[in-house]
Amino acid sequence: MKDLAYYNGKISSIEDMRIPMLDRGCYFGDGVYDATFARNHIVWQLDEHVARLYRSADALGIGIPHTPEELCALIRRLVTQVDTPNQWVYFQVTRGTAPRNHAWGEMCHGNVWIMLRPTEMVDVYKKIKLITVPDTRFLHCDIKTINLIPSVMASQKAEMAGAQEAVLHRDGRVTEGSHSNIHIIKDGVFRTAPTDNLILPGIARANLIRYCGILGIPVREEAFTLDDLMDADEVISSAVSRYCLAAEEIDGKPVGGKAPELLRALQDMARKEVFDATAI
Amino acid sequence: MKDLAYYNGKISSIEDMRIPMLDRGCYFGDGVYDATFARNHIVWQLDEHVARLYRSADALGIGIPHTPEELCALIRRLVTQVDTPNQWVYFQVTRGTAPRNHAWGEMCHGNVWIMLRPTEMVDVYKKIKLITVPDTRFLHCDIKTINLIPSVMASQKAEMAGAQEAVLHRDGRVTEGSHSNIHIIKDGVFRTAPTDNLILPGIARANLIRYCGILGIPVREEAFTLDDLMDADEVISSAVSRYCLAAEEIDGKPVGGKAPELLRALQDMARKEVFDATAI
Repeated sequence: MKDLAYYNGKISSIEDMRIPMLDRGCYFGDGVYDATFARNHIVWQLDEHVARLYRSADALGIGIPHTPEELCALIRRLVTQVDTPNQWVYFQVTRGTAPRNHAWGEMCHGNVWIMLRPTEMVDVYKKIKLITVPDTRFLHCDIKTINLIPSVMASQKAEMAGAQEAVLHRDGRVTEGSHSNIHIIKDGVFRTAPTDNLILPGIARANLIRYCGILGIPVREEAFTLDDLMDADEVISSAVSRYCLAAEEIDGKPVGGKAPELLRALQDMARKEVFDATAI
Repeated sequence: MKDLAYYNGKISSIEDMRIPMLDRGCYFGDGVYDATFARNHIVWQLDEHVARLYRSADALGIGIPHTPEELCALIRRLVTQVDTPNQWVYFQVTRGTAPRNHAWGEMCHGNVWIMLRPTEMVDVYKKIKLITVPDTRFLHCDIKTINLIPSVMASQKAEMAGAQEAVLHRDGRVTEGSHSNIHIIKDGVFRTAPTDNLILPGIARANLIRYCGILGIPVREEAFTLDDLMDADEVISSAVSRYCLAAEEIDGKPVGGKAPELLRALQDMARKEVFDATAI
């Protein structure tokens, strides 16, 4: 198949897949998701991403009708059915199917959605442009839900400005990107916001912290400001599909480029780990 | 028909209606909605609710492929196709159908969803129970979107506590209910939060303010606190389907009941206006 959609056991192309209008995802956005990629039909850090899906679901009382092991096995099997070796691997679970009523009572039979489509591997050394946008999201950003309108609006604003990501901030404090975590390198230290309810605990973020440990780069998990961002030696956006991208511009002003060796060491390590794990 | 679902021109029962998985509502909650009811097949304040839908859509750059007049005519026509004279009338517009990508670029062809189902008219004189819950929603509560997880969670908490609504508050300030506006009467004055980005500008709320004008009840559009709420002469929850319901209990403690004549005058006026407008 060229791409693949799965919904509660049904399989088709993504374009052809149809969902019940009464899926609570359709009218409440009442669901959680996670995503990663496959290279050479091998899924990158699937266990970690599926584990986070279960944490997101647990936080909202959404039931997933599989064990994590079953879900991983299902996704790995479906990935083999798509022709293209490099794929975007997306999975979401909505709370269930029922007449619209905010409270769900006892009903808790989750619906499983999966989408797989061809993707290109990112060039980790390519610089990106960012814009800054006030963070107006809800206070559960540690849960990966499909309530994504503020991220959608910020991403559109970035695209309209010719940028690749929007950096969100609350009262001057940088939280994260609209679909990535944001970090800085300053005076040899890797700085990143702490994992509270204002940011998603990124798996790529955890990887970068681990790489810092290996490379002997000190890590400070502490909130930083927009001023810190503009003044940083390097500004990094991380997400599963863009494991360690550095910014060259924010709101049209040049940033970073002042710690190229440290940056390169992190990027090389990230790239090597992905390529080794997905080699055939 | 017993109930009716409409999606971009297709009509079926609600249970049978299927939606493309690639509708942006399904994975971003990227849509807006509004709702009212019909009595005797006559839709209550449809023009006002449709006008608010367009304001919500405009705020997010979502295009609706009809004029407001066309959408009103469509809804009124569909309502006649449902057997039951009293109906819940729900309509939503999602941004469009496309492969998942946060930014939507130039694509902006909205999808129109409508659901009609039998409903019972609320008994406006019946007292309700409330609970209080911290307001953790995003900062666009004036836009009626389908990003509703915090309202879903609060409503579930209310139901589990045997209550009918959750009162949300930020740092002690009452904002609104999880699916209604909250008002108080104190010393003969009708108090209600101002229409900023923290509350939905309720149409039932506007009606109540109008009734106050007719009845000579002074109105103060000013934020009030949880303490004010507990100490109020009456506590009122308003929404289109519950135009003026009074609370008798909040978090298990008795409230209100100290201005029954004013309350009754508002309720009588609300009920009469609805019944007159939908009489046959």
